[in-house]
Amino acid sequence: MAFSTLAKNFQVCSRSHAIIFTRASRKASTNVGFIGLGNMGGFMAKNLMNKGHKLVVYDVSKAATEALAKAGATVAKNPADVAAQSGTVVTMLPNNDIVTNVYTGKDGVFEGLQSGSILLDSSTVDPSVPTALEKIANSKGSFFLDTPVSGGVIAAQSGELTFMVGGDKQIFEKAQGVLSGMGKKLVHCGGIGMGQAAKICNNMLLGISMAGVAEAMNLGIRLGLDGKQLMDIINNSTGRCWSSEIYNPVPGLMPNVPSARDYEGGFYSGLIAKDLGLAQGLATRTGSPIPMGALASQIYRLMCKAGLEVRDFSSVYKFIQDGQKI
Amino acid sequence: MAFSTLAKNFQVCSRSHAIIFTRASRKASTNVGFIGLGNMGGFMAKNLMNKGHKLVVYDVSKAATEALAKAGATVAKNPADVAAQSGTVVTMLPNNDIVTNVYTGKDGVFEGLQSGSILLDSSTVDPSVPTALEKIANSKGSFFLDTPVSGGVIAAQSGELTFMVGGDKQIFEKAQGVLSGMGKKLVHCGGIGMGQAAKICNNMLLGISMAGVAEAMNLGIRLGLDGKQLMDIINNSTGRCWSSEIYNPVPGLMPNVPSARDYEGGFYSGLIAKDLGLAQGLATRTGSPIPMGALASQIYRLMCKAGLEVRDFSSVYKFIQDGQKI
Amino acid sequence: MAFSTLAKNFQVCSRSHAIIFTRASRKASTNVGFIGLGNMGGFMAKNLMNKGHKLVVYDVSKAATEALAKAGATVAKNPADVAAQSGTVVTMLPNNDIVTNVYTGKDGVFEGLQSGSILLDSSTVDPSVPTALEKIANSKGSFFLDTPVSGGVIAAQSGELTFMVGGDKQIFEKAQGVLSGMGKKLVHCGGIGMGQAAKICNNMLLGISMAGVAEAMNLGIRLGLDGKQLMDIINNSTGRCWSSEIYNPVPGLMPNVPSARDYEGGFYSGLIAKDLGLAQGLATRTGSPIPMGALASQIYRLMCKAGLEVRDFSSVYKFIQDGQKI
Amino acid sequence: MAFSTLAKNFQVCSRSHAIIFTRASRKASTNVGFIGLGNMGGFMAKNLMNKGHKLVVYDVSKAATEALAKAGATVAKNPADVAAQSGTVVTMLPNNDIVTNVYTGKDGVFEGLQSGSILLDSSTVDPSVPTALEKIANSKGSFFLDTPVSGGVIAAQSGELTFMVGGDKQIFEKAQGVLSGMGKKLVHCGGIGMGQAAKICNNMLLGISMAGVAEAMNLGIRLGLDGKQLMDIINNSTGRCWSSEIYNPVPGLMPNVPSARDYEGGFYSGLIAKDLGLAQGLATRTGSPIPMGALASQIYRLMCKAGLEVRDFSSVYKFIQDGQKI
Repeated sequence: MAFSTLAKNFQVCSRSHAIIFTRASRKASTNVGFIGLGNMGGFMAKNLMNKGHKLVVYDVSKAATEALAKAGATVAKNPADVAAQSGTVVTMLPNNDIVTNVYTGKDGVFEGLQSGSILLDSSTVDPSVPTALEKIANSKGSFFLDTPVSGGVIAAQSGELTFMVGGDKQIFEKAQGVLSGMGKKLVHCGGIGMGQAAKICNNMLLGISMAGVAEAMNLGIRLGLDGKQLMDIINNSTGRCWSSEIYNPVPGLMPNVPSARDYEGGFYSGLIAKDLGLAQGLATRTGSPIPMGALASQIYRLMCKAGLEVRDFSSVYKFIQDGQKI
Repeated sequence: MAFSTLAKNFQVCSRSHAIIFTRASRKASTNVGFIGLGNMGGFMAKNLMNKGHKLVVYDVSKAATEALAKAGATVAKNPADVAAQSGTVVTMLPNNDIVTNVYTGKDGVFEGLQSGSILLDSSTVDPSVPTALEKIANSKGSFFLDTPVSGGVIAAQSGELTFMVGGDKQIFEKAQGVLSGMGKKLVHCGGIGMGQAAKICNNMLLGISMAGVAEAMNLGIRLGLDGKQLMDIINNSTGRCWSSEIYNPVPGLMPNVPSARDYEGGFYSGLIAKDLGLAQGLATRTGSPIPMGALASQIYRLMCKAGLEVRDFSSVYKFIQDGQKI
Repeated sequence: MAFSTLAKNFQVCSRSHAIIFTRASRKASTNVGFIGLGNMGGFMAKNLMNKGHKLVVYDVSKAATEALAKAGATVAKNPADVAAQSGTVVTMLPNNDIVTNVYTGKDGVFEGLQSGSILLDSSTVDPSVPTALEKIANSKGSFFLDTPVSGGVIAAQSGELTFMVGGDKQIFEKAQGVLSGMGKKLVHCGGIGMGQAAKICNNMLLGISMAGVAEAMNLGIRLGLDGKQLMDIINNSTGRCWSSEIYNPVPGLMPNVPSARDYEGGFYSGLIAKDLGLAQGLATRTGSPIPMGALASQIYRLMCKAGLEVRDFSSVYKFIQDGQKI
Repeated sequence: MAFSTLAKNFQVCSRSHAIIFTRASRKASTNVGFIGLGNMGGFMAKNLMNKGHKLVVYDVSKAATEALAKAGATVAKNPADVAAQSGTVVTMLPNNDIVTNVYTGKDGVFEGLQSGSILLDSSTVDPSVPTALEKIANSKGSFFLDTPVSGGVIAAQSGELTFMVGGDKQIFEKAQGVLSGMGKKLVHCGGIGMGQAAKICNNMLLGISMAGVAEAMNLGIRLGLDGKQLMDIINNSTGRCWSSEIYNPVPGLMPNVPSARDYEGGFYSGLIAKDLGLAQGLATRTGSPIPMGALASQIYRLMCKAGLEVRDFSSVYKFIQDGQKI
């Protein structure tokens, strides 16, 4: 191949300083592969289709893939098959082990991977997972970004997710087309794994905040303060935060938030418990003290035991009131 | 006295529905008494003087009273003497016991109290204290509001404190003249004691938030995230809060905050530890679970033991880094 | 009175170094007064009667006093009346305020107090309460010991309570007759208030231990360890403690403990929550960091909200399993 | 080979029900291999030699291997070389990753493993590590037990360690010869990984207990109780535990424990912090709430930041007093 083409095809990955040779002569397919069509993935894939992308999908649930097939997606027989037909692959899976297996296991993405592909994992996992998967992807002439999301099912449905992205900046720019098909805000957080790191750190703080707001509101109300008045005071004081201003956990103070509808839907306690568990592991590994984060982690875990696992995490207000499932 | 005058002088206290007869024929003095001329009180009294009020002051420290005498204040010999010469009395004292003693003890405010006076306690104390003192004040034909402040020494000096006020709304309105001489924002929080309740609840949430931000930032930075980038991400995400947006604890991310100057000045760890201790007592009394607040309380207490008692409370970031005094 | 008699009647109280003049010429009645005939007090009074003491009783509940009247006790009309007829008075009441009121309020013990009486408060209260009451008692020529108990309802019934006693050692010796009528172990802990201090500190540690055992057992069992085997390993290792050896919270491992009977009876979560609340107040007052104690306090409080208030405190094991009331 | 010999050589592993064929015709060497000659391993290897075992050793530190060579041990060039010359191999290594690498990495134990060998890993690691390594060992006709220790450097030196063993019971019995050369108490805890599980659960409880004792003692002493008296009260009450009875953290109450010598030596805060970190990971994986254990984990981590990492963990008493490094 002519040197000019080679030069054009050189990719410098900021993280590793390795030069990745993209075989641009074989153009990556414009198909977008999507693996993991659950509560979030189903809507994300749908939005991509609505934006005009051609989808190749896979999920262990036949019902999930059939729903998308009806809408025009191609159903692949396994992750490798998805990768073989797509130039970009998005994964939206529950945990470290499943993500690792879907990429590296038998019939996994890497088995069918086309050189020059862009892999976008939107699952929330330990940063060590994308770090390891990026190495493998690079060795096969492809690219990997960790692209975890924030915004929940509502934002997944409306296509307004926020993506916190880690990995090579140039690849981030190339991926913006596909990411914009699912989200409204795309934030580049740093090298590979830094999207996960940013999301996990933010969500640890969120978990701490929400529990703090629930405790402060409950205490104030039991002392005789009017709930709405206290909320306004806090929102105009040093205690103000998203959990108090946008997503208040006290029923009756705000419309259109989970506390207004018995904590149905929203961002499940079980999911933030999972994020906080990831935070704990990261903190242990880096020797970072997180007393408040560790306690918040335990509180949401206790809430899962008390039947609030599939209720919005703002149900922590309910939990400290009477500790019982709704 | 004619009935019309009686009627004009009837005060209905919303809390007790008792009718207080103000002997309007003896006009309350326009002098403002000020007891407690420490870090906060000294500036507050000064600002009142600058606004044209005539001050009658008292403090156990002669140096403190002399400084104000030089500026034109009258020095009283004890709290009773202050009360005897003033129509409004402001107190700014360290704790429950001292406040109670200054009002009810020998040579205390109530001994010299002029009927029709307005008593404004700006100390941060348990709501039971103003509740008890209001009863006594009322029985002597006077009025009491709890008026704790927020904004710290900086705001005390610039006259921009926020007052969270509890007590009768009409008295609150009458007191606005004096309060505006020291503060910018006056919030009526409810009946007697509700100013303290609101302040304590807000400060408990603040203590939780700041510790959470310190933990999330420390974890993220140790994972490889750039501090400024992580701060921006959080401030545009669900984790955003005053502690992260206005008063970030990580050195170098924000100018003009304590973290930019080795945590000097600001809002002392010892003071927020005190507020959190009050919160714990209130929570115990009302049976309100405050796991996060209780832990935050212990963290700031440990920080006091580690030599950070007179450093800004955002030094919690330093504490979780190396646990040592600065 | 002759000097020799005066000398014989001089009492030196170690704490105050004051000389108390006991009017030995008027012999203190041998009656034992008992105020507070609840779950614990009822049995304690009964045991005193069985040991041959003549009781003068009072309780707000007529049913409670009638039960003891049937057994031969004299029913007094109020605490002052109890004190007027007794040389020793025992109180067993729920909290600081009630104890203070029964002694110092209208028709309270101090109103009817006979000089030279010994007052034994077996309630669990803040050490500041006996400290204040002892001063008053001494000023009236009487004596006061704080004598909180441990051993629960079972030991109250069988007369095998442990008394942790604070106050003058000589008075402690004089009181042993009455205390032995209700308990088996009498421990002198120090000056006035030190009985309360010792009990509260021990119970804080007990609350921490029991929660720790529940967590370790639950974790081990969920990891695949056999419960009995793990219990034996812990009991022969550095983790061994009373909660694991004598009162294990895991159902099926030990007979005749609350975990063997759905946590019925025993030492209520609500009561240890109260003790831990007292510990928190003491820690705040002395600036003592108690992170583990503060968290344990919150856990038992959450358990009360979850319906475990009147279950044995070892139900913490159940709480971390499914967080729900039994 | 005759069937009788085959039959005699059949091993039934209780956990997997697989039949492992031991090639008894090639007798496993009587040499004992030892990999990891640090603070603990050095003494353990020494004791084995003193008991008459022939040692083949390896460590990344030449100084460590030389010391043992001087005493008569054979120095191998890598873990594979140790395994090739030994019938039993003991490993004593710092963490999950190093253990996994020493066994499965290049030039690792499995590369030189002689069929019929017994592998004893005395490191403290996540139970998933021995579970995975046992599978590999079995597939190569060898055996694996997790044999973590308790007793610290003192017991390592005196040959009085306690081994908490997980794995096949018959292999446990075969291994007793070698284990007794290093320890006094050998406890079979269950199947593979259960030694680790038991140790981690016990040590989590120990960490909680010690922190609780430090808090209760500190609070009591600051309330005015005599330290020795409070210790005796607790040790005869429901709060009694090993940390209070055998290893009291308060200086001056007990001789010959770390608190009597500025917390030198003993069981390092950094090591119990590591165990508690393992506990957190296990709890997250099994969804087991461990609020007290999580907080204890954070406290010891904060202590490591404060310079107490290589002091005995009972220095938590010092930490809550003045938070500073000794």
